[in-house]
Amino acid sequence: MAEILLPLPDPAATGMAHQAEHFPEGLMLDCGVQLAPISIAYRTYGNLSAGRDNAVLICHALTGDQYVAETHPVTGKPGWWEDVIGPGRVIDTEKFFVICANVLGGCMGSTGPKARRRDGVCWGPDFPPLTIRDMVRAQAMLIGRLGIAKLFAVLGGSMGGMQVLEWAATFPDRVVAAVPIAAAAYHSAQNIAFHEVGRQAILADPAFHAGRYADHGVVPARGLSVARMAAHITYLSADALTRKFGRRRQEGAEEEMFEVESYLRHQGSSFVRRFDANSYVAITRAMDAFDLAAEHDGQLGQAFRHTRVKFCVVSFTSDWLFPTLHSREIVRALNAAAADVSFVEITSDKGHDAFLLDEPAFHATLAGFLAGAWDRR
Amino acid sequence: MAEILLPLPDPAATGMAHQAEHFPEGLMLDCGVQLAPISIAYRTYGNLSAGRDNAVLICHALTGDQYVAETHPVTGKPGWWEDVIGPGRVIDTEKFFVICANVLGGCMGSTGPKARRRDGVCWGPDFPPLTIRDMVRAQAMLIGRLGIAKLFAVLGGSMGGMQVLEWAATFPDRVVAAVPIAAAAYHSAQNIAFHEVGRQAILADPAFHAGRYADHGVVPARGLSVARMAAHITYLSADALTRKFGRRRQEGAEEEMFEVESYLRHQGSSFVRRFDANSYVAITRAMDAFDLAAEHDGQLGQAFRHTRVKFCVVSFTSDWLFPTLHSREIVRALNAAAADVSFVEITSDKGHDAFLLDEPAFHATLAGFLAGAWDRR
Repeated sequence: MAEILLPLPDPAATGMAHQAEHFPEGLMLDCGVQLAPISIAYRTYGNLSAGRDNAVLICHALTGDQYVAETHPVTGKPGWWEDVIGPGRVIDTEKFFVICANVLGGCMGSTGPKARRRDGVCWGPDFPPLTIRDMVRAQAMLIGRLGIAKLFAVLGGSMGGMQVLEWAATFPDRVVAAVPIAAAAYHSAQNIAFHEVGRQAILADPAFHAGRYADHGVVPARGLSVARMAAHITYLSADALTRKFGRRRQEGAEEEMFEVESYLRHQGSSFVRRFDANSYVAITRAMDAFDLAAEHDGQLGQAFRHTRVKFCVVSFTSDWLFPTLHSREIVRALNAAAADVSFVEITSDKGHDAFLLDEPAFHATLAGFLAGAWDRR
Repeated sequence: MAEILLPLPDPAATGMAHQAEHFPEGLMLDCGVQLAPISIAYRTYGNLSAGRDNAVLICHALTGDQYVAETHPVTGKPGWWEDVIGPGRVIDTEKFFVICANVLGGCMGSTGPKARRRDGVCWGPDFPPLTIRDMVRAQAMLIGRLGIAKLFAVLGGSMGGMQVLEWAATFPDRVVAAVPIAAAAYHSAQNIAFHEVGRQAILADPAFHAGRYADHGVVPARGLSVARMAAHITYLSADALTRKFGRRRQEGAEEEMFEVESYLRHQGSSFVRRFDANSYVAITRAMDAFDLAAEHDGQLGQAFRHTRVKFCVVSFTSDWLFPTLHSREIVRALNAAAADVSFVEITSDKGHDAFLLDEPAFHATLAGFLAGAWDRR
């Protein structure tokens, strides 16, 4: 098999400090555990206006992080939404103060399974079960600390879109505009199934040591790599895979294989350098548990009752992980709540990952909606 | 994690004999290796007519086997196509002589990685690379041994459908009617990608021992189980998963989980009791390599030039692993070759596995086509 490279040193472990705010009082989680203290790592771009009214919060997806519009300190790659965020870009950092925080449960400086409890022991697999709402409450604490009473906009794709919905439902008076992209108000059975395959791959790796791998000085690199490979397929459309790779064979490899195989192996092995297996388990479980209607007596519309938030719901035609159907369910609930909502389905053959890629019609949609919401704020 | 149960004793290893024909001369494989000797395990149902003109060959899918219309000797479950094959059924064993053989490379009695080479060593991971055409040539040897010059029909779904296409292309004078179901003339990039995830899960299992697990008295149960779980999701539609499981929680489990998680774990752990990991790797590689057009100068139509075989191509609307698009490509090539072809897309929300399930419109299609082909033979 392809050699799974050992992870690079963890920047946190090697003393690299992520910018973070610390909250000694912690946060009462939905599961009933008071998680304290907590730290929320974040990055900002642009300047907060004197009126403190130009803040835009970006919520990242499962394996994203706060390095949204700058070179990533571990991978050295561009920020995951640099196409969208920057001076003169769709989310113009000369106009907006952009904030992106690593989610609670994450592994890039926010409190998660890698963090130590008060007694000095790593949380590891005993990190309490998280919800998307917990992540959002932690972000709200950060926003408060930054002195922002109300966000102009909250945007995010995939799990980021779940957070956007939760922001609008939980803090309707603290958000002007909300843009859930390639998202859903609950995780489907198929999505749970794919996550479970990934978790089982991690748990099956003997290096996982029931989540106590740090005590053994190892990481479950092979299991995490397989989990990433399985997930990665779901982020792309069948057409995108055909266009990128078709049935071409890898040239010059020692072992004969298809290009798509080589690509997936690379995706897997590079992922393990930057992500923590316990975080992967915790965050996928939070996504699986997400069901916004269930938090509101089974009525999704109740989540948005009397809301004054302006919504723009975006989906992509070839996204089979969070298909347009799921966005339509959100729109239907918003309409039932008489909310201010636009819905745009972008024609794209790039699959779920389209929200991260260069999709001019999508970017034009974001720009147009934000400009309109700004004028009507 | 859920306990992965140890596999039951392998019936072959414990002396259970599968009905088989033996060919000391072996078979020259597409890779250039003379594989000798070979055995082909098979089952038959019904009686061969005096005119030897009523033989129907059933080709099984990746993890299927020859026990198509009787209780499976390992699992104790009904044959995988008992709904279709039997007295008075769609493929009526009072009229037809039905044959089903375990594919070359398989693990239910046909020569595969579990078999021993002439020097007494298990083939294991060194089993030569197989093609779908190799499997079909081995079946043709069996059919010859059974004294059948021409099959009335060849039918199969998924990888079985690939074999049906290869039968028609390689032995056009030995087949009256061909029914490729939920199949394709080549494996797509997405399909290769899913197979690669499964293989990497197997290879990542330390019990795999680079394929020499038998020498260590173990089986890579966890890796094979994860491979099965990932594959199983692709056999069902998102709608079918929602209908079967939705977001229901498992009742009474020690560990809180969704029903779909519990179901997948069961699929994984029960699979390892009956299947060999090296076979899984070898057969998935054969499927990935399948590209019928490439065998005919890149022209799929050339594969069927001047054919007199009567075709019935069947697809299912919700099959995203072998979507209707791929069946249409087969039909287009058959039309270009002026072949006798019917094409039926069955409306079903059951996904790829629909061909194994109770789908009345599908069964009516098979019955109607076979009756017509019989009358026109």
